[in-house]
Amino acid sequence: MDPINESVEIEGVIIQPLKQIADKCGPVLHMLRNDSRLFKQFGEVYFSEIYSGLVKAWKRHKKQSQNLVVPLGEIRLVIYDDRPNSNTHGKIVQYKLGRPKNYRLIHIPPMLWYGFQGIGDQTSMIANCTDLSHDPEEMESLSADTIQIPYQWKTLK
Amino acid sequence: MDPINESVEIEGVIIQPLKQIADKCGPVLHMLRNDSRLFKQFGEVYFSEIYSGLVKAWKRHKKQSQNLVVPLGEIRLVIYDDRPNSNTHGKIVQYKLGRPKNYRLIHIPPMLWYGFQGIGDQTSMIANCTDLSHDPEEMESLSADTIQIPYQWKTLK
Repeated sequence: MDPINESVEIEGVIIQPLKQIADKCGPVLHMLRNDSRLFKQFGEVYFSEIYSGLVKAWKRHKKQSQNLVVPLGEIRLVIYDDRPNSNTHGKIVQYKLGRPKNYRLIHIPPMLWYGFQGIGDQTSMIANCTDLSHDPEEMESLSADTIQIPYQWKTLK
Repeated sequence: MDPINESVEIEGVIIQPLKQIADKCGPVLHMLRNDSRLFKQFGEVYFSEIYSGLVKAWKRHKKQSQNLVVPLGEIRLVIYDDRPNSNTHGKIVQYKLGRPKNYRLIHIPPMLWYGFQGIGDQTSMIANCTDLSHDPEEMESLSADTIQIPYQWKTLK
């Protein structure tokens, strides 16, 4: 199985580098298995495309955990920790995810704010395998330019 | 939830058209939820890229079911039923899967031979959410040009 690295940057965020298995017809890319420590239960798997330079932010889930990979293109993922009792309260961390250099899974536990920006030349795609299926009741949103989160998305275009 | 259509062409194969939800930053694409009739249990989710015109074939799983979607590009999926007790024994069926017109999930039960060819101009990508994690012991392969399967892959390039 692919090895798992804890992220020490934000409490509860876990990063797992993933295999890209070469094949003359096209590579096979790992994402998530039922024997992974990052797998708890299956909620839903879906994709989100993000056009080059554009931003989808901010979101926070009260109950649902995210398991994100970027099998197409590249994104900048930004996570903000404003959980009052977190050891990393107040931290903002940027992660690059994508192909081929940063092909890895990132596990985001509930109650963290996150958003992402397409930074590839073309459209990028995020795959998300959650532990609960979609429920708008457990989700919160803020606009990308909110003053509640001390981060400024850079316009790329 | 996205509606489900039974495929009457091969016994046990099920097709589900999936939503592509428009968004000004990039669409969200459904794949599979835990409350779908197509979801039994979670084994593994992974991706397989296929270069334009090339073929990955043939494979058969003794135990594992496949749930395939094509979130990037387009493929021709071919399924061959040589199960002795099947009502559709001997049938070969071609399915187009991909974006934007044929974005749908196809469920392939065990013991069916299948293979696919990239028919988009660019690289295509298959996502597969299986009910058992990868186990080479339960998998069989035949070469694309085997005479055991009455299908000839067309060279596109």
